[in-house]
Amino acid sequence: MYKQNHLSNVRVVLSHTSHPGNIGAAARAMKTMGLRHLYLINPRHFPDPQASAMAAGADDVLQNAVVCATIDEALQGVVFTVGMTARVRDISNEVMTPRDAMPQIVQQADLQPVALLFGTEMSGLTNEEASRAQLLVNIPANPDFSSLNLAAAVQVMSYELGVAAQSYQPVAQTLQPAAHQQVEGFLTHLEKTLHEIGFFTTQNPARMMQRLRRLYARARLEADEINILRGILSVTTEYNARLKARYKQDNDV
Amino acid sequence: MYKQNHLSNVRVVLSHTSHPGNIGAAARAMKTMGLRHLYLINPRHFPDPQASAMAAGADDVLQNAVVCATIDEALQGVVFTVGMTARVRDISNEVMTPRDAMPQIVQQADLQPVALLFGTEMSGLTNEEASRAQLLVNIPANPDFSSLNLAAAVQVMSYELGVAAQSYQPVAQTLQPAAHQQVEGFLTHLEKTLHEIGFFTTQNPARMMQRLRRLYARARLEADEINILRGILSVTTEYNARLKARYKQDNDV
Repeated sequence: MYKQNHLSNVRVVLSHTSHPGNIGAAARAMKTMGLRHLYLINPRHFPDPQASAMAAGADDVLQNAVVCATIDEALQGVVFTVGMTARVRDISNEVMTPRDAMPQIVQQADLQPVALLFGTEMSGLTNEEASRAQLLVNIPANPDFSSLNLAAAVQVMSYELGVAAQSYQPVAQTLQPAAHQQVEGFLTHLEKTLHEIGFFTTQNPARMMQRLRRLYARARLEADEINILRGILSVTTEYNARLKARYKQDNDV
Repeated sequence: MYKQNHLSNVRVVLSHTSHPGNIGAAARAMKTMGLRHLYLINPRHFPDPQASAMAAGADDVLQNAVVCATIDEALQGVVFTVGMTARVRDISNEVMTPRDAMPQIVQQADLQPVALLFGTEMSGLTNEEASRAQLLVNIPANPDFSSLNLAAAVQVMSYELGVAAQSYQPVAQTLQPAAHQQVEGFLTHLEKTLHEIGFFTTQNPARMMQRLRRLYARARLEADEINILRGILSVTTEYNARLKARYKQDNDV
């Protein structure tokens, strides 16, 4: 009747949640739709009696919740991160509706860990958090009053996921996307390299890295490709180091 | 961007709600999706500070909420009632998923008042309340934990309605369904007539009326048709009265 197999790879990640009642209500919303894995990045109060009261029977989801210090810890092992946004952003990844996004979310979750990433009650995800996502999703809402409660947004996404999972038909997947930490490792390597070769003397580093993040988020890098790209970066800096050494030698001698 | 025209005919009806916080959270959920008309049948506590706190900016929906003593008062003028159910019922009207039900709900709401009817937190709609609905909707949920919070259920239905309203294309409608009170007037007349003609001597009246309700809910009676059916009922009892009178006369003389 209700298939849970595609949902066991889905984790709900709540970042810096202020009100413990929302954590409990989110746990309940998740469990009603068959989701079980809750990750909390620096919640203000947790565990908390209000969270347990609002969970109303989803205590197991709360008890198994993983409390993390950083977003990268919460996304460890994740190959596809969906960031929830209420805003249209300046430099954005693709923004989709839940309905349109579900087929690819379920397809990813059929194979590997997927995260639904929710920001704070007051201001949502930071730009830095949103930049960790491969896809941004906006729940269409009344333009005059678009502030869904955090747990209500979790309910809508969990519901959409549950409905999509019911009708999911596996398709042949050739792409083997790399895990979050591999992509972050590459981006750190890239930024370091761009600094070393002096690329940032004429460019705003933060803005440029946002653009590069966006590009590689769209590309959905595979592990092999990351190895190739990092190989190129290594050679680049070695070449650069050799150039510098030769320059120094030529000018010293 | 966000069309509200099909939504102004939709009212959310909450029956005998226990927790005022749920009324406030339901109002917020409604407003985020562009719904404004809230009807409350005998709420345990309303108005209440907890309702206002959870409304978080949807105070106008609470302030304009209509408090009713009976379900028939809350459904006055409604031509299409959608009852929310978490259970499979014995004698049921059609039960659909929100996704499948939305096209007809939006189509009705494009023309005339429609109600989404929610029961209590503990036990949902009574059978009598559910029998007032032309359509029952069940939100598909985890069979091991299907208890959506009341406001979460309102959020899911409001969200589905908002999404469906976005893509709604009006179709030519030939049916002009009668208002709730006209249908109830007919059913009362029918039951009274069946009593008078002695039909219930061999039948369980409550069970039979449930079956007849179901039949006429499916038929979506028009006002003209109700006039015809009530005309038949009147003639039936008049004929019966004439028979009785003649019998009495024949046996007295």
